[in-house]
Amino acid sequence: MVIKVPATSANIGPGFDTLGIAIDLHNTIIIKKSNFFSLSIKGEGADRKRFKSNNLFVHIFYEIYEKLLKKRDNFRFEFNNKIPISRGLGSSSAVITSAVAAAYYMYDKDSSKTDILNHSLKYETHPDNIAPAVLGGFTVSILEKGKVLTQKKSMPDFLKAVVVIPDRPMSTALSRGVLPKHYSIKDAVFNISHSSFLTAAFMNEKWDLLKVAAQDKFHQDLRMSNLKELFAVQRCAYENGALLSTLSGSGSTFFSIAYEDDVKRLTNSLKIKFPNFKVESFNFDNIGLKVKF
Amino acid sequence: MVIKVPATSANIGPGFDTLGIAIDLHNTIIIKKSNFFSLSIKGEGADRKRFKSNNLFVHIFYEIYEKLLKKRDNFRFEFNNKIPISRGLGSSSAVITSAVAAAYYMYDKDSSKTDILNHSLKYETHPDNIAPAVLGGFTVSILEKGKVLTQKKSMPDFLKAVVVIPDRPMSTALSRGVLPKHYSIKDAVFNISHSSFLTAAFMNEKWDLLKVAAQDKFHQDLRMSNLKELFAVQRCAYENGALLSTLSGSGSTFFSIAYEDDVKRLTNSLKIKFPNFKVESFNFDNIGLKVKF
Repeated sequence: MVIKVPATSANIGPGFDTLGIAIDLHNTIIIKKSNFFSLSIKGEGADRKRFKSNNLFVHIFYEIYEKLLKKRDNFRFEFNNKIPISRGLGSSSAVITSAVAAAYYMYDKDSSKTDILNHSLKYETHPDNIAPAVLGGFTVSILEKGKVLTQKKSMPDFLKAVVVIPDRPMSTALSRGVLPKHYSIKDAVFNISHSSFLTAAFMNEKWDLLKVAAQDKFHQDLRMSNLKELFAVQRCAYENGALLSTLSGSGSTFFSIAYEDDVKRLTNSLKIKFPNFKVESFNFDNIGLKVKF
Repeated sequence: MVIKVPATSANIGPGFDTLGIAIDLHNTIIIKKSNFFSLSIKGEGADRKRFKSNNLFVHIFYEIYEKLLKKRDNFRFEFNNKIPISRGLGSSSAVITSAVAAAYYMYDKDSSKTDILNHSLKYETHPDNIAPAVLGGFTVSILEKGKVLTQKKSMPDFLKAVVVIPDRPMSTALSRGVLPKHYSIKDAVFNISHSSFLTAAFMNEKWDLLKVAAQDKFHQDLRMSNLKELFAVQRCAYENGALLSTLSGSGSTFFSIAYEDDVKRLTNSLKIKFPNFKVESFNFDNIGLKVKF
């Protein structure tokens, strides 16, 4: 079995825990029956010992596999990881959804993506990365009675994702736990209206409204102030044709959307200005998690 | 000049200060040049003396008219009001937008609805009623640098509005001023995600998702607990085919959306159960404010 799962950018400005989008940058996992258990890791994470000794994918996969199939089999797992780890590009949601999918598809080739998405909630309680990882495209999600409900919009070919990946992760001091516990009604209404308006802009393909809609009062500035170059990244992106430029998830990656024709100028400007950061452009992924038997 | 302006239902569940929709229930204002100033009121508000002595429409109209045309003329104003007053159906936004429009159109027949909407913000600082009043349809709005930005979706003919208008307004103790000043991140994220998801459901015409999307944690229950029959109204609406049923603005009216085929059952059930409340069904208004010279 071969599973491909895309990177994802979540929040997208005001859409805290709500909005997400899938990028054509993938982890690929090959799983083969074998006489004994083994795993290999290429690419991102290959140098981290604990990913071999205590692998999250393997852990989740076996937990579900044994529950569904009532037995333990040995497999060889070959990970080819392209999604950077701890950079806000959904690497852990990619691991979770692909592990859940692998077990489900081995149990039943006709497993639904809805089942995979809902089961993934057990390991990742926020839907904004797992929904686009499984379904692809731009997604808006709510949680209802322990299930994920998602509406999706496929992204057109003429729009590209440009990501700026800093040379370091965000400080863990700026993780979810240190966000304010309360927000003023003014800031809350700001995010309610902007996230709704941003959703409408995606659904209506009003690309020129993305920038004004993508403003946030919940977390972005607070997190960016821990890696101040990101303010300059955002400014540079908007000065060079970005339609939208937001912190990706909780960072440290910065995510932009641009018209195809502006991508070269945008990536070149960012590369010149931020030589220590990785600047790359990608298509969007409108399919999400894929499996080949 | 004849101006027609629709009633509007704002908030629509989680879309606090953001979402609104226009209903085919109108105030009509006839304005004629005259040798002296006079006004008449028919329908809603006809019995209120202060609407004659200190009329908001006349006040706003002259303020703008004199500023634009640099003179004061006398007019006869004939108000034919069908929008109930102080019931959460946008009566004051109807007055504001129609007064602004009357002055603007007298100054320049080609005035834009955008100008009218932006100027209306001077008198009503929240966009969720004025946007659908001016533009019609379902609207999602943000404020940006003192201007209203709105995306609109026209409603299909096969959907109808059903309104339950209580025999009394909401207590003023439940006006905006007494809402919480702060919200927990959990409740704020609930409304961000649900308002975004609700917006997507309207844009994508996923009518069967309206109900789950229309849940709110910001104001609805708090206000409804002051007029407890409204919980029963909502329950009755959902038991009899409503696709969505929410407090209209800050109440006291309850607003539902239903398929045409379900309207009779829905209105009959509501009428039987709430004989003291007015129950009416309407088309939606996809045009908004209209003027005839």
